[in-house]
Amino acid sequence: MIVVKIGGSQGVNLDTICADAASLIQQGEQLILVHGGSAEVNEISTQLGHPPRFVTSENGFTSRYTNRTTLEIFAMVTAGKINTLIVERMQKHGVNALGLSGVDGRLMRAQRKEAIRIVENGRKMILRDDYTGKIETVNTNLLQLLLENGFTPVIAPLALSQQGEAVNVDADRAAAMIAGSVHAEQLIILTNVPGLMRHFPDESTVIPRLSRAELDSALSFAEGRMKKKVLGASEAIHLGVPRVIFADGRTEHPLLDALAGKGTVIA
Amino acid sequence: MIVVKIGGSQGVNLDTICADAASLIQQGEQLILVHGGSAEVNEISTQLGHPPRFVTSENGFTSRYTNRTTLEIFAMVTAGKINTLIVERMQKHGVNALGLSGVDGRLMRAQRKEAIRIVENGRKMILRDDYTGKIETVNTNLLQLLLENGFTPVIAPLALSQQGEAVNVDADRAAAMIAGSVHAEQLIILTNVPGLMRHFPDESTVIPRLSRAELDSALSFAEGRMKKKVLGASEAIHLGVPRVIFADGRTEHPLLDALAGKGTVIA
Repeated sequence: MIVVKIGGSQGVNLDTICADAASLIQQGEQLILVHGGSAEVNEISTQLGHPPRFVTSENGFTSRYTNRTTLEIFAMVTAGKINTLIVERMQKHGVNALGLSGVDGRLMRAQRKEAIRIVENGRKMILRDDYTGKIETVNTNLLQLLLENGFTPVIAPLALSQQGEAVNVDADRAAAMIAGSVHAEQLIILTNVPGLMRHFPDESTVIPRLSRAELDSALSFAEGRMKKKVLGASEAIHLGVPRVIFADGRTEHPLLDALAGKGTVIA
Repeated sequence: MIVVKIGGSQGVNLDTICADAASLIQQGEQLILVHGGSAEVNEISTQLGHPPRFVTSENGFTSRYTNRTTLEIFAMVTAGKINTLIVERMQKHGVNALGLSGVDGRLMRAQRKEAIRIVENGRKMILRDDYTGKIETVNTNLLQLLLENGFTPVIAPLALSQQGEAVNVDADRAAAMIAGSVHAEQLIILTNVPGLMRHFPDESTVIPRLSRAELDSALSFAEGRMKKKVLGASEAIHLGVPRVIFADGRTEHPLLDALAGKGTVIA
């Protein structure tokens, strides 16, 4: 079993990723696809008059401030548009994909972060009315039911809070939780960079191999959105996933290249 | 088994419909929810700079002209926003709802209408590049699999064409096809009017009971969107659904009222 996280950044090539995914499935591999959608959420929320707002936590992690309006736009774009476009591409390749978000069938339950502590212009603040969450459980039975019946799950980054609300979750960490819960052999995180760089954005500093022990130090030099990906990788490794790969989602064969060892392999 | 079509027109009350649906499910009834989303698709597509365009076929049926951009907005709003909001409401009521569109798991296969013949300002025209379809088959196995495992399906009106493209389908006719395929005892079509009116919009002319034989004549006096609902009802009856009800989706108890015989009952 391989869990593939398809990044939502500009440049990530859904066509080549889906073609690779379909060829692996047709060779008998089981896949679960998890996707993001940040670039498109930004674009559409701006067009709808709700430009995105990003906040930085006290620990230096960046996340999208998600009030109820943002949540609904986020659901619309990720679960409605991107998810459908991935399922459609997989279906065109003959794979019986089935799209879900974490809200569906209680696929992912999360603790909603009702108050988040952020730092803005050097000042500490508390934001309320935020609809983001930290995933606590994955409904592995539902995923197994779908896989056993020949469906390939395609998962949008929403979860259901303990109060029954839809919340936005980080797609990298969702992929990590899912990979851990289904005992995946590999988690492949596809993004719009060639791997984890020691000195971002210098692509000549991509790290080809990273040991478990080096993951913590990687958190200190990873920049921006890569920070959360390293956190996701670390969570997956702690959950028993033997191999996590950061790879380039913009190439002709993003998945086949990753499986051949291109990018940053954490094992 | 009851199939409930939740209309997407202004005024339809998702809160009370979901509350009724949850109470029926908790009393042991099996439900499948199918929804539209026309009002919200119009609103959001206008905001995104693609105002909706409606066309009238030679037979007098109105439908949304759906080029690829419209299709993606349609998917976004119906499968992403409305579907998620219904699933979320059902989950809050303790029902394990699971949202799908017809693209997912090949739930609905359709014949794409690549060229549609329309009448505009008295002139006949052919429109191409349209992504609408007529449903041909419903994947009953997938619906049974979900129902047997305790999930309540919530279905958005998209289908997969024979070429593997997502297409927009009429939600009333989708609900009819689904009701027929699962041998539902009842199909309840909730909308923002109290029933089928003999003289639209005079609500004192709501027809309480309509026989099978009277359905064809109803096609001639039904106005606007009600025309397609009558067509859907007729298709459901032909597929063996014993009872179809047009009922008011704006009330305190839309489903319980419908089951008590309010609205227009076709049997």
